[in-house]
Amino acid sequence: MDFELYAVRWMEAGHGGPAVRLLDQTLLPERVEELNCTDVPRLAEAIRALRVRGAPALGVAGAYGVVLGALTGYGAATAAETLSAQRPTAVNLSWACRRVLAAGLDAAAMLAEAHRLADENATACVAMGRHGARLLAGVQGKRPVRLLTHCNTGMLACQGIGSAFGVARTAWEDGLLARLWIDETRPLLQGARLTAFEAKVLGMPHAVLPDGAAAVLMARGEVDAVIVGADRIAANGDTANKVGTAMLAVCARHYHLPFYVVAPTSTVDLGTATGAEIDIEQRDADEVLTAVGRVRLAPAGSDAYNPAFDVTSADLITAIITERGVASPPYPVSLPALAAADRAASAAMVPCDTPL
Amino acid sequence: MDFELYAVRWMEAGHGGPAVRLLDQTLLPERVEELNCTDVPRLAEAIRALRVRGAPALGVAGAYGVVLGALTGYGAATAAETLSAQRPTAVNLSWACRRVLAAGLDAAAMLAEAHRLADENATACVAMGRHGARLLAGVQGKRPVRLLTHCNTGMLACQGIGSAFGVARTAWEDGLLARLWIDETRPLLQGARLTAFEAKVLGMPHAVLPDGAAAVLMARGEVDAVIVGADRIAANGDTANKVGTAMLAVCARHYHLPFYVVAPTSTVDLGTATGAEIDIEQRDADEVLTAVGRVRLAPAGSDAYNPAFDVTSADLITAIITERGVASPPYPVSLPALAAADRAASAAMVPCDTPL
Repeated sequence: MDFELYAVRWMEAGHGGPAVRLLDQTLLPERVEELNCTDVPRLAEAIRALRVRGAPALGVAGAYGVVLGALTGYGAATAAETLSAQRPTAVNLSWACRRVLAAGLDAAAMLAEAHRLADENATACVAMGRHGARLLAGVQGKRPVRLLTHCNTGMLACQGIGSAFGVARTAWEDGLLARLWIDETRPLLQGARLTAFEAKVLGMPHAVLPDGAAAVLMARGEVDAVIVGADRIAANGDTANKVGTAMLAVCARHYHLPFYVVAPTSTVDLGTATGAEIDIEQRDADEVLTAVGRVRLAPAGSDAYNPAFDVTSADLITAIITERGVASPPYPVSLPALAAADRAASAAMVPCDTPL
Repeated sequence: MDFELYAVRWMEAGHGGPAVRLLDQTLLPERVEELNCTDVPRLAEAIRALRVRGAPALGVAGAYGVVLGALTGYGAATAAETLSAQRPTAVNLSWACRRVLAAGLDAAAMLAEAHRLADENATACVAMGRHGARLLAGVQGKRPVRLLTHCNTGMLACQGIGSAFGVARTAWEDGLLARLWIDETRPLLQGARLTAFEAKVLGMPHAVLPDGAAAVLMARGEVDAVIVGADRIAANGDTANKVGTAMLAVCARHYHLPFYVVAPTSTVDLGTATGAEIDIEQRDADEVLTAVGRVRLAPAGSDAYNPAFDVTSADLITAIITERGVASPPYPVSLPALAAADRAASAAMVPCDTPL
């Protein structure tokens, strides 16, 4: 690719910094612009305006933002408070800010912790990619596969190669991806705007489709597997993810296709028994009634139904691919085992998908 | 409503005519503008530019256009040829032009035939509405129902109250519609742009949703039935309709909901044995990669997969509602019986749904 694709990057003093540099995701795919946040208020605005999004990427942005606060006189603790408040529902953001803050009073120690957090994200993504690509190779017998994905779960969300997208990318690098079908993912079009952009930058063979067209591909035998990320996985395997995911899972079952979820073990919430306990956030009607806020699509005064997520029933999920390995049904057995392996092996990991 | 909603209307000489008056559907829902076509070239442009669309409405536009040709010196036969060529795949357009042309050499006879054709459309819609509302009342036990629909099958498509939308409207007038859920219907957004507009004008309770959110409503028990139109129904009941329909049918089955198709008997093509024989038209990638041509949604150079239709398997269809009555499975028995009743009862009827 002509340039490096990333969500968040730390810039050292004397090399454009100290600053937190972002790719401004609100301008993609039309414009690729970097935003150099040299102070905390500027970074706070960027987080609030969704110039950086995706839970893991938000965590990294917050982590470096605390360091920036320490170095610029804004103050590390104040930075943690300011930044966390920009996306109160993004638990990874406040979690990462607290973690860096706890690393010590000097900026060097905090920076080391922020780098460690970013590295953990990247490492987990690579491991998910490996496990997933191996699973696909086994299932499909080394024949290049046509994968269908939804939303954005790649570099722009994860500060690493991504979760579901990372598996597709790893398969592609192994010569085992024939094509990535990308659901455009209405209403916010993260598939069309961000995932297609990542695929294009990397040169991966891909095509964007309206969310309602997935069944046509499945019926024609042009999809080998569906692969998606996750926002939260209940103890029984029920999985919350971007709206549109559940319809893919139902259709995958109908057309006899495997349906894979890819997420780090930290996404597994053993405290949530089933998907019925997961609240579905309703978002603003204007997201549906406009195209990315720029063209009105429906009459003023029409109502809209705009759930951010849906819950895919565990019985529709063929396997859950994590950085610690692949969980198969029955999930009430396999998920706690993976979570235990994770607790044993590492510090906390940032979940690799996100509300936006 | 403040104004009358229609697709096509004949204007008499001395009352703004002779002219074919259209509601310009390309401007909806942002602007409600009438277009008075006082000559054939202007009407031809309007048809080509999709200012009027929907197979039945196109037929009526063509029928009146031939009369306009006869009255303006353009010539009836030349008008039929010019107008038919604007949408070569819209068989109703050329069929209606030929029918009016065959009605006689004088303009009065042609106008009478065009009026008759428009009336037949309207009458068929009323009958479909009645049959459908009666079916819903029987199934749901007089409790007001929440219907989910897709695309536009109303007044703007049908020159009458519509097919699937007409059933919803009839149920609403009977006090039996609690809410109409409207799939936005990407890529061309006929649900958001046109069906929501019709519902709003009529004051029907409605909300627009992203196509991928239908399963959330179904899982939460907020839908009682799915109701859609049809572009072509094969002899075995397999039904081609706007892309996104098949996913609704698969999900309706998964969530144990009835799935109804509404279309006039002329949509039943006994010469097509099964859906496997129906070609799926692929449309331009830019329909997916932009929002109604006005905002780019995906990177330049990305491919798109854009089938105009999909085929819903007959075994997923609970019943097919026509102007001659309701066909139930097994369709290979019930559909020929309805078609025979239709041949016995009437001249040809214009199918009530459309490629765009």
